[in-house]
Amino acid sequence: MEKTKLLTNLRGLITPDPSQSWKVDFIEAPVVALKNGHVDWIGGRAELPSEYANSEQIDGKGKWASPGFVDPHTHLIFGGDRSQEFNRRLHGVTYAQIASEGGGIRETVRATRQATVSELVNIGASRLQKMRSKGVLHVECKTGYGLELETESRLLQAYSELLKSGWSLDITIMPAHDIPVEYAGKPDEYIEVVSEEWQPELVRRHPNTASFCDVFVEKGVFTPEHGRRVLESGLRLGLKPRIHADEFVHTGGAELAAEFGAASADHLMFCSDQGMAAMAKAGVVPTLLPATTLFLGMRDFAPARRMIEAGCRVALASDFNPGSCACIDPLLILRLACLQLRMTFEEAFTAMTLHPALSLSRSDLGHLYPGARADLLLWDVKHPLELVYWMGEAYRPEIICASA
Amino acid sequence: MEKTKLLTNLRGLITPDPSQSWKVDFIEAPVVALKNGHVDWIGGRAELPSEYANSEQIDGKGKWASPGFVDPHTHLIFGGDRSQEFNRRLHGVTYAQIASEGGGIRETVRATRQATVSELVNIGASRLQKMRSKGVLHVECKTGYGLELETESRLLQAYSELLKSGWSLDITIMPAHDIPVEYAGKPDEYIEVVSEEWQPELVRRHPNTASFCDVFVEKGVFTPEHGRRVLESGLRLGLKPRIHADEFVHTGGAELAAEFGAASADHLMFCSDQGMAAMAKAGVVPTLLPATTLFLGMRDFAPARRMIEAGCRVALASDFNPGSCACIDPLLILRLACLQLRMTFEEAFTAMTLHPALSLSRSDLGHLYPGARADLLLWDVKHPLELVYWMGEAYRPEIICASA
Repeated sequence: MEKTKLLTNLRGLITPDPSQSWKVDFIEAPVVALKNGHVDWIGGRAELPSEYANSEQIDGKGKWASPGFVDPHTHLIFGGDRSQEFNRRLHGVTYAQIASEGGGIRETVRATRQATVSELVNIGASRLQKMRSKGVLHVECKTGYGLELETESRLLQAYSELLKSGWSLDITIMPAHDIPVEYAGKPDEYIEVVSEEWQPELVRRHPNTASFCDVFVEKGVFTPEHGRRVLESGLRLGLKPRIHADEFVHTGGAELAAEFGAASADHLMFCSDQGMAAMAKAGVVPTLLPATTLFLGMRDFAPARRMIEAGCRVALASDFNPGSCACIDPLLILRLACLQLRMTFEEAFTAMTLHPALSLSRSDLGHLYPGARADLLLWDVKHPLELVYWMGEAYRPEIICASA
Repeated sequence: MEKTKLLTNLRGLITPDPSQSWKVDFIEAPVVALKNGHVDWIGGRAELPSEYANSEQIDGKGKWASPGFVDPHTHLIFGGDRSQEFNRRLHGVTYAQIASEGGGIRETVRATRQATVSELVNIGASRLQKMRSKGVLHVECKTGYGLELETESRLLQAYSELLKSGWSLDITIMPAHDIPVEYAGKPDEYIEVVSEEWQPELVRRHPNTASFCDVFVEKGVFTPEHGRRVLESGLRLGLKPRIHADEFVHTGGAELAAEFGAASADHLMFCSDQGMAAMAKAGVVPTLLPATTLFLGMRDFAPARRMIEAGCRVALASDFNPGSCACIDPLLILRLACLQLRMTFEEAFTAMTLHPALSLSRSDLGHLYPGARADLLLWDVKHPLELVYWMGEAYRPEIICASA
């Protein structure tokens, strides 16, 4: 039995309340008691129970404590980058033109296929380190730049090694991310091989690694019927569904997610009112990716307010990937959520902590109530609102990690 | 006569070409010769003239060199902050409601009036240090949070002391920033006292300090006729005009700027085609403030492409201020310009270097051709495009300062 440690000398503490919907607590001059790798007690200094009185103290240096951010949608590991293609697009070259020359996602797939497992692990670790320095303490990571069995397997191997190194991850199998060149014009055949052969083989080769599977349901990529086959295959293998849904047109992805009781439906720029109501009823977490909207130069952000009003527990994520969002900055997402998605600070904060943890079935993450994992962030601000208000500041939190 | 220094071991150099319109040069493996505080020569390593052969060398560490950013529109010094008001607005409280309670700009004016010159200097220096760390090496700074003679004078005194400390600034007199509580409902009288009494008195008290004057021409603030009086007064005092124009509705601010041959017209979200044509003809630099659009939660950014097509030499600026843009991040502005204003990387880069320098009549800033001031930035990237592409990275340049 480990000794209790007390985090004291804090200016304040901000945490969502996991027992209530959309409630965020701001506690002034708080104390956090940590024990056996978890939060044991939080509250005002004056209320500290006497049992903690003689515990070892950690100096909070007058900062604000918060739970770590949880990022529930990343394509963390890919080879190469696409900055040159990016500038061609700024110069007006269309995505279709770039794709017809073998660029776009195909370039990333080529670079990823050429990488060894050890190279993939190094790429992943360096990006996770960057995310951690910005306060992201748990990350969902997808495969999907292999688009062939062996590279998808190497990606899973790389994620598995990152897990073993102690990174806090959830892993999602996603060969149904795009149609590979080998199956060009044959999406039905591709979905058949993904659902019937690759997903089962990937789970067999990498047991206890992935928790989810995902599919890109979108006009020109995969239909809801394709999505259904991939998710049914996943469910048979014990993989919970996530879905890339309604990103560029309304395809009924949100409705499909609700039908499957998916953990999340992601993007949702063109989600219908029916889709929102269905997600609210089924407990699907709508996961919005505002940095992608910015990166793609689109004007309209996802309809967060309508989803909240429909009763959905909205989450936010980075969508980190080389083509449509080369960005892993949680503060930019928090700021876009407040300023463009019209979420209050409290809503946006909940959508970057408690709700993504919910979509990943991690009840010990995304808050600082008793039972929470004893990892937290210390922010050098007078009030957490400043993280949004001083929009250009690259705040870096100090990380207290007492869970190990 | 100072010895020449050679900046070598650079991966590349990016600079606008001041002799041509919208041309940006990318030079691989370049050398920069610095002499007497200025750039003496730039070019590829193989072309280095023999006269420089034995010069002292500065190690570029394999980085990319660029000119410093020039920020041509800031309200640098103000007291207090407005983060709590900011969250009330996120919660749906209107600006009008906050103003009716004495909040908004009045809160900032109160805090600024209470500050001593030495406090104002410290506030300014700390913000300039932040800007510099992000690569902004020259800053335009406005008064305008005094809205009374004595505080406007203290603001000028503070800017003057920052100039003496060696900061590279241009200073703009702007009591016509808003109607102070003392003149509520009496904008004509306020403009009368500003034009006929305060501006002359401020220039008399602080000679050789300000180069510009500015006025907020906007529905509900000052009319074009008010603007005309302020700018005429400024011209008599040797102050070149700048104008806050067409920010929320079309008031003809751009046309007024053209009529006065103003150095810049700023904001311009609702600029007319006639206004653009007039600015192009008169050589007014349209100065766009995309971080303000983001901060205010507006959807439509200024029509940069139409202005470029109209022949305008567009500039970008931060608009740093406590109410509508608490942001001094040049990389965010560069990214918004590319992704939302639809400027190419080369255009956005020129609009943050050469064109703002042009609007400030600083021919030695905003480029690295011979004659440029010998201050430059070194970026640790494979290519400058990455500054936009890796949208979440808070790149900080190394600063080479050989001008002093």
